[in-house]
Amino acid sequence: MGEKVVIALGGNAILQPKQAATYENQLENVRKSTEIIARIVKNGHSVIVTHGNGPQVGNILRQNEEAKDVVPPFPLDVCSAESQGFIGYMMDQTLKNELHKAGQTNEVVSILTQTEVDKNDPAFENPSKPIGVFYSEEEANKLAEEKGWIVKEDAGRGYRRVVASPYPKSILGSETIKKLTDVGTIVIASGGGGVPVIKKENGTYKGIEAVIDKDRSGFKLAEEAKADTLMILTDVQNVFVNYGKPDQKALGAISLAEAKQYEKEGQFSAGSMGPKMEAAIKFAELGGRAIICSLDQADLAMEGKAGTQIS
Amino acid sequence: MGEKVVIALGGNAILQPKQAATYENQLENVRKSTEIIARIVKNGHSVIVTHGNGPQVGNILRQNEEAKDVVPPFPLDVCSAESQGFIGYMMDQTLKNELHKAGQTNEVVSILTQTEVDKNDPAFENPSKPIGVFYSEEEANKLAEEKGWIVKEDAGRGYRRVVASPYPKSILGSETIKKLTDVGTIVIASGGGGVPVIKKENGTYKGIEAVIDKDRSGFKLAEEAKADTLMILTDVQNVFVNYGKPDQKALGAISLAEAKQYEKEGQFSAGSMGPKMEAAIKFAELGGRAIICSLDQADLAMEGKAGTQIS
Repeated sequence: MGEKVVIALGGNAILQPKQAATYENQLENVRKSTEIIARIVKNGHSVIVTHGNGPQVGNILRQNEEAKDVVPPFPLDVCSAESQGFIGYMMDQTLKNELHKAGQTNEVVSILTQTEVDKNDPAFENPSKPIGVFYSEEEANKLAEEKGWIVKEDAGRGYRRVVASPYPKSILGSETIKKLTDVGTIVIASGGGGVPVIKKENGTYKGIEAVIDKDRSGFKLAEEAKADTLMILTDVQNVFVNYGKPDQKALGAISLAEAKQYEKEGQFSAGSMGPKMEAAIKFAELGGRAIICSLDQADLAMEGKAGTQIS
Repeated sequence: MGEKVVIALGGNAILQPKQAATYENQLENVRKSTEIIARIVKNGHSVIVTHGNGPQVGNILRQNEEAKDVVPPFPLDVCSAESQGFIGYMMDQTLKNELHKAGQTNEVVSILTQTEVDKNDPAFENPSKPIGVFYSEEEANKLAEEKGWIVKEDAGRGYRRVVASPYPKSILGSETIKKLTDVGTIVIASGGGGVPVIKKENGTYKGIEAVIDKDRSGFKLAEEAKADTLMILTDVQNVFVNYGKPDQKALGAISLAEAKQYEKEGQFSAGSMGPKMEAAIKFAELGGRAIICSLDQADLAMEGKAGTQIS
């Protein structure tokens, strides 16, 4: 009997570091990813796919900037929606194709997703996520004044806009996503964490210029769509403790208590494994199974035979 | 008892002629459109919304062109997917909001849609749809050689790339769209006619650089999702015959036979009302009701009280 799994694809599943951001490169990476996802579907599981969009939305912002004299630039939330269109199209197409090659007849749909965040999220008080192109100090200050941006010096490379990375509060449309996956439809959703929106006093939604961590949204999606498993894909086969030290250890199947203990010890760095472990622990706390593994072992990990498994 | 209706929004529902293509202008136009769609939902109908993307994909192509030295430009099908992301986001958000204001609790989902076209469609032999920016003759010839583009002189304004506008053969995922609308979910789909794809020998899909008329795709979507009504919105309240002549006449409720007779007489111009009437007639031939009307009368027309109605 199959499980319902939310698979959160890492950035490398779309574009490898140092690879040129051509469509062909990205399509081939996505194809390879969906080939493995198709195996998981073939093994009888019901799948929801989610993914990051950092480099892609960065390039769309760059295009907006370069063309600003001829095409009015769009806010970040809209650029994020465009990147969902782009990546969702590649995933939808390649997943349909890979399922067809695997002899599977499941329907696949890619849903443009908005994710509600709290307008009072503390992240808005101290925006820290750099996005878009680099500016000189003078340009950056001018843009800060003109557009109300917050700009910061970025590691000696120039000035960049910084935005908040608030927590996802709910995934809009998750009820429909749940219903679809309940009947075996494969859903691609919440790309780039979902376009961030806030709820106004009158109950309507409004886009907001922020970014949402895709692993956090993956957790929220898994919770709301009532998934059995949350699988977070990354570049390494397992999560490590004491990383880079003589007693370095790859984690296999561990208990929730162990995972929380390691987290408490500060074993996981804020920039990489930290948010993944945080999402995994939260999901295990709800009683689900959380997996962190590499893409090429995803089908094995789904059967409990690879990766770091928390339950 | 409500009907299932596919509503095809015209270009003006997103951007008015001569309006600046800012996000704010486009969002407000879309909001006004979804306010009227929300009334149709409130009247008990099940709605699928589709829309054009001409000016929007044009601007994305322009951004790709302006930034080509720093971001690898994407093929037309990918730019079209990005425009679906952008427009779908606006529609999804405003429709959710307008339904909320109207006290409706229907779920709304925006589905990224691919539309299959026939790789042997005669349109590919004579591409005629100009897209993207203007080039000098020299630049145009260089691009034609480098990229295999077909370029044509455009009414004395310079050279442009031309692409084919093939017929939609099927809307991928329409089975899911049908199922969702059967249970009252409002679906936004097939934006810009859907991203054009062809089926390869091995049964897999591949994007193709072409454009698809959104009214033709609207018809195909209405057919496949088993809609009762196809409603095509335009700038005028009715279709006219003998347009601009002393015996000019606005068409109200007409029979399929009358509609076909007028079409045979060449009453409808290829560039504007022709494709709309063609789609309407095809849908009426399947036994459905087809409506061509203005946005502001859409709810009245849905109740049979305005617009041109063919059945």
